[in-house]
Amino acid sequence: MSEIKLRIISQEDVSEIFKGKTDVLLEVIEESFLKYIHGDVLFPDKISQIFDMETQNRINCMPATLLGEDMVCGMKWVSVFPTNAPKGIQNVTGVMLLSEINTGFPVAVIDGTLTTKMRTSGVGCVAAKYLAPSNVKTIGIIGSGEEARMHFALLKHLFPTINECRVSSRTSSSEESFIRTFNKITSDVTFIACNNDSYKCASNADIIITAISGQSPVLKAKDVTKGGLYIHVGGWEDEYEVALKAQKIVCDDWEASKHRTQTICRMYKEGILKDHDIYANLSDLISGRKKGRDNDDEFIYFNSVGLSYIDLNLANYIYRRAKEMNLGHDVTIAESSIVNYKDLI
Amino acid sequence: MSEIKLRIISQEDVSEIFKGKTDVLLEVIEESFLKYIHGDVLFPDKISQIFDMETQNRINCMPATLLGEDMVCGMKWVSVFPTNAPKGIQNVTGVMLLSEINTGFPVAVIDGTLTTKMRTSGVGCVAAKYLAPSNVKTIGIIGSGEEARMHFALLKHLFPTINECRVSSRTSSSEESFIRTFNKITSDVTFIACNNDSYKCASNADIIITAISGQSPVLKAKDVTKGGLYIHVGGWEDEYEVALKAQKIVCDDWEASKHRTQTICRMYKEGILKDHDIYANLSDLISGRKKGRDNDDEFIYFNSVGLSYIDLNLANYIYRRAKEMNLGHDVTIAESSIVNYKDLI
Repeated sequence: MSEIKLRIISQEDVSEIFKGKTDVLLEVIEESFLKYIHGDVLFPDKISQIFDMETQNRINCMPATLLGEDMVCGMKWVSVFPTNAPKGIQNVTGVMLLSEINTGFPVAVIDGTLTTKMRTSGVGCVAAKYLAPSNVKTIGIIGSGEEARMHFALLKHLFPTINECRVSSRTSSSEESFIRTFNKITSDVTFIACNNDSYKCASNADIIITAISGQSPVLKAKDVTKGGLYIHVGGWEDEYEVALKAQKIVCDDWEASKHRTQTICRMYKEGILKDHDIYANLSDLISGRKKGRDNDDEFIYFNSVGLSYIDLNLANYIYRRAKEMNLGHDVTIAESSIVNYKDLI
Repeated sequence: MSEIKLRIISQEDVSEIFKGKTDVLLEVIEESFLKYIHGDVLFPDKISQIFDMETQNRINCMPATLLGEDMVCGMKWVSVFPTNAPKGIQNVTGVMLLSEINTGFPVAVIDGTLTTKMRTSGVGCVAAKYLAPSNVKTIGIIGSGEEARMHFALLKHLFPTINECRVSSRTSSSEESFIRTFNKITSDVTFIACNNDSYKCASNADIIITAISGQSPVLKAKDVTKGGLYIHVGGWEDEYEVALKAQKIVCDDWEASKHRTQTICRMYKEGILKDHDIYANLSDLISGRKKGRDNDDEFIYFNSVGLSYIDLNLANYIYRRAKEMNLGHDVTIAESSIVNYKDLI
């Protein structure tokens, strides 16, 4: 009966699709939140399979559905392996699966590694669009890995006025590696290696980002010295007092976050934060239901946990663009539905 | 840094792997239960995304992990679309994803359509190995679709003594289609079209199977007239009195079943069945912890809900055999981990 083909779309295809199209990337992300607000999203809790409590090596399974005009269901399958880093192996590796929901057939397998980086940083950028102070010049990034770099790239696109980027990491070689990556391609930015000094990195920065996977409070409350935006990407990497210092706490989705293990979620479980301490979800700002920043003196804390329907909306966009651009290639996963029962009896 | 390749293993490859190897299929399934007993399995609840309450069109996401010697994590993604059947389109379509968990990299995308049929029917067969009466001659199958057929094929392999197969379905054309499929390849079996008469189909049968997706009690208690085994495959397709008539109720996994919607799960929710009414899980019989059938007069009810770790153990076996047999082909999902940040700024 039915031949079933899957379009295989590699990381390089995804890269090609978004080449010079950062605005489109951010639009697709923003559009995801609107679809959610319009009730077009199924959004089950993600499943995390942790293989080893000590290493926290795990694979997260993040399914979602877009109803409405899209009618697709999909899943991101992403491994987070802290033990890879010391071996020089990438610690986040993802693959996404996309199905249409007219017949329920799978249609594509898409890289989920680059897409994850772009989605996470893209969400931070969309938050910054609503929450950054008026004239972004200085950013301080704690962390120097892939997420740190992608945040810098997308933020520099969004705010061409950025002229200083400070980077703080555990080793000076990783700080230098970060700086080498960007020195040539952003000649109007002064890069400062902070030698693992969080105060040097964060103080007076218009935007602070922590993109590290550690589980200790590297960002101190004393490092935050002025109004600005803090984008929290990792797990528990900032003192509780940082969030307590914020005039507003905004989340990608507080309900999806509160039972997780990020700093503000820990604070919630310990009774230090209550639901009413969360000012808004990002969708409230995008939809105009709530105002973003009131003035440049506010210190605003943004936390993202990662939402599967954003990955799905990206996957669907990537799939459609790949077809239009003739990227990727089809493989046959089933030639027909005929079963040779004789071979089994 | 890392090139990531996926082995694409099609339905036809899976068919080739199990050609004439039904014993191996059943062994791999039985082995899955032993791995579970030995504590080598992570086994989160499956996620069902239902797109339409009326049609019940849905996609199930079934992740699992095998620790121990295997060290693989995987997921079956399977759509169940009742609305496909009237259109002549297969209603169950699956694809499986397999990752190794040393670095967390995905390694294979495997057909999940044929595999699902073989797994479901294979679990029924493993149950029959422990629970069928001593001399299986007559089987009565309600339903005539893919699962009904696969059950017949595997049961006929397991019990070559089967010489009568009755089939009951909503239309006589579908009963005849079932019979045409098997008439030539099993010349020692008499096939009887029951014209949708469940009594004619089930009475005096050594094994009764209901492999239908309806939600009404097609199998009546009066249809069950002697000791034997009833293999329940679908949802709610048998009168409550059928289960009440059973001397033993056995499940693939009662804990994983009880909150679902199959007949005995409904009975549990309504207080008609209690935990202690469930005699055993299949793993109790395989491990020898409990005895299967005591005598030929017993009527035994077997219910399977579908366990993700069995799919995963099959996927892992299929992947290893595909490599040994040079089946399937590799696609590159990422050539390297280098990101062109310049293209995004």
